Amino acid sequence: MKADDLILISVDDHLVEPPNMFDGRLPARFADVAPRVRRLDDGSDVWTFNGSVIPNIGLNAVAGRPKEEYGVEPTAFDEMRPGCFDIHERVKDMSAGGVLGSMCFPSFPGFSARVFSAADDKDLALAVVRAYNDWHIDEWCGAYPGRFIPMALPILWDPHLAAAEVRRLAAKGCHSITFTENPATLGLPSFHDEHWDPLWQALVDENVVLSIHLGSSGKLSVTAADAPVDVMITLQPMNICQAAADLLWSRVIKKFPGIRIALSEGGTGWIPYFLDRIDRTYDMHHLWTGQDFGGKLPSEVFREHFLTCFIADPVGIKLRDMIGLDNIAWECDYPHSDSSWPNAGEELAVVAADVPDDELNKITFENAMRWYSFDPFAHRPRERSTVGALRAEVAGHDVTTRSFDKGRFERTGAGTDLSALASNATA
Amino acid sequence: MKADDLILISVDDHLVEPPNMFDGRLPARFADVAPRVRRLDDGSDVWTFNGSVIPNIGLNAVAGRPKEEYGVEPTAFDEMRPGCFDIHERVKDMSAGGVLGSMCFPSFPGFSARVFSAADDKDLALAVVRAYNDWHIDEWCGAYPGRFIPMALPILWDPHLAAAEVRRLAAKGCHSITFTENPATLGLPSFHDEHWDPLWQALVDENVVLSIHLGSSGKLSVTAADAPVDVMITLQPMNICQAAADLLWSRVIKKFPGIRIALSEGGTGWIPYFLDRIDRTYDMHHLWTGQDFGGKLPSEVFREHFLTCFIADPVGIKLRDMIGLDNIAWECDYPHSDSSWPNAGEELAVVAADVPDDELNKITFENAMRWYSFDPFAHRPRERSTVGALRAEVAGHDVTTRSFDKGRFERTGAGTDLSALASNATA
Repeated sequence: MKADDLILISVDDHLVEPPNMFDGRLPARFADVAPRVRRLDDGSDVWTFNGSVIPNIGLNAVAGRPKEEYGVEPTAFDEMRPGCFDIHERVKDMSAGGVLGSMCFPSFPGFSARVFSAADDKDLALAVVRAYNDWHIDEWCGAYPGRFIPMALPILWDPHLAAAEVRRLAAKGCHSITFTENPATLGLPSFHDEHWDPLWQALVDENVVLSIHLGSSGKLSVTAADAPVDVMITLQPMNICQAAADLLWSRVIKKFPGIRIALSEGGTGWIPYFLDRIDRTYDMHHLWTGQDFGGKLPSEVFREHFLTCFIADPVGIKLRDMIGLDNIAWECDYPHSDSSWPNAGEELAVVAADVPDDELNKITFENAMRWYSFDPFAHRPRERSTVGALRAEVAGHDVTTRSFDKGRFERTGAGTDLSALASNATA
Repeated sequence: MKADDLILISVDDHLVEPPNMFDGRLPARFADVAPRVRRLDDGSDVWTFNGSVIPNIGLNAVAGRPKEEYGVEPTAFDEMRPGCFDIHERVKDMSAGGVLGSMCFPSFPGFSARVFSAADDKDLALAVVRAYNDWHIDEWCGAYPGRFIPMALPILWDPHLAAAEVRRLAAKGCHSITFTENPATLGLPSFHDEHWDPLWQALVDENVVLSIHLGSSGKLSVTAADAPVDVMITLQPMNICQAAADLLWSRVIKKFPGIRIALSEGGTGWIPYFLDRIDRTYDMHHLWTGQDFGGKLPSEVFREHFLTCFIADPVGIKLRDMIGLDNIAWECDYPHSDSSWPNAGEELAVVAADVPDDELNKITFENAMRWYSFDPFAHRPRERSTVGALRAEVAGHDVTTRSFDKGRFERTGAGTDLSALASNATA
């Protein structure tokens, strides 16, 4: 398929929270303790909440920058592309990149909102999570119906409250919740504990996908403090296989057969090997470990429960039949450093040049629509939803690379202590 | 190729150290502190050294057992197949499985001999490592010339001593050294520190392969203490991609272009995805991280330095061209629980049914010979080295499955606390 004819729904992008997002959304008694943006003496903008100071590192907002200027230094709103945090600019950037729909993960709260759940005052934590979710659904996604797959932050400290929030938001049309790839590493009961059952039941009842983003265990793959940053970048998506294995073998899958899980930004090329590995593990070991999938192979069970996704993954495309054509979705990863925006459509067209149209359509938009109960065509006809059509609508929008090298921050990067980066960059 | 016509050299098997291995090999002053086998009150046999008690868990010596009896309980020499620890029985088992050659990793010292290096008395530690290496080369491998690829234990506490030991053993024909997949997790300088340069130089000078076995970082992939053991088994080989990334991006590869590394028991099906990932990481990030391979792609550099191996990996076989036909070797993993002994040849013949003979020969023995400077045909003609020919030589050898279910140990397993297992099972 030609790039212009693709229809692209991205199941993994990121938003940088704008400073005013909580305005009018919290009870007056929390006015002094609400999350807020502060400018530090070095000129960077940080979010502060509950004693934490959370910078936004450069690598996480590099859309439209030259690659020479990627780095892990802190940044500020006026050195980011406005599409990172401004919904109107974001939609223009999406159209200029040919992207019809997008699901946006959070930045400063962490992928599992652990920054919020860390608050000692759980009334405050609850108010902030709910305010964030309402802002995300009503203001961010609501500004452009049919362009965004809404996604909620989880409540980590109480599975009954978590379930109630899922049900509240499902009634508003939200069918995705972001979660940690390993609650145990956050000091919470693991995936193997009954503790979470009320949440799992709510997900099944309300047809909500558990979207697990790489890096959401609260730790990056840092092999050594003095390892080059390239090591961590390489290993990021490979780490998520731990969450896949953890959940695949868990009681969750067996007790909640309707549960569905997305491995966000996890890549796809490793999945065939993983599926072979779990089937072999089952064959060699289930007689003593007691694993029982009711006569199914673990790889079959995987395909019933897991959505995988990729940015540009020639191996995954080649092996798509071994992964499962109904289990692969595309992602853009705007505005992070792994994204090929605004040329992601062209990149995909090259990687998937040999893929028949009906298969490619599943990967680029049909699977995302089905898994996330998302119907952009209720708002925009299909013929106006292609890469070519969307681009034509914003023909004058500037997507040329913009240099910030004369900005106020000294660039850091290759020599940075990754231990410090790990604690700042993830969630 | 038919199974009978295969020539099999396994680059990853395991030996269980026999109780008498140190007899006459240590100075008299260490008689009271030498490693020794003790029988515990529960009837299990353990090695003791320097205050440590190291059991041999059942899973690591299950060759010839029914799968229902796999488990992580401790074991004893009289409940193991003698081929685990007796060289004469081992060679018969190899022949009965059709295996011509074998490289045997250690058990109780740990893959990187950290049990020995932990001794406060470094003279004792040095004497024990050297005694082990001499026993391994002279007695274990030496008993059957041409049947074993010798492999040395490393000296972890002094890179100059480590280099000297490599040179001493290379003179005895040893071209493999086992090592940790991450020295940093053992509390040592990381792969990125100049500390290890004397060792790397010795490896290059003496044409010795750094053989890095999965699990050798001293920790298993345990997602949570209450995770099913299946999770850890699944993730074991996937963990080694961290060592591959760590070394690929390190200064070691650049400063020692002759260094060669084996990812032992690491599997192969994930390698094409990994190679694509490192090339993309390079493309997206090298302008700010400063990585420079002199005009080569990281994937090309990987193929110059890394040997991969597999037990039975249909994905890796299918994608062998993307891995590199000169970079794949077969392994048996006797007597561990992932092994298909004595039917590994039949299993491989099925998985590799479509592979041309010249390509399969590289994978089953030619690559192992070249990487490890090993020439079995100096001792045995090629026509007597096939699966069929070797089996015919030991036609009466009993390889039927033997039950130990009436043995003295209560079987444990699925419900075992993996944290405890992790600290015992690895090295």
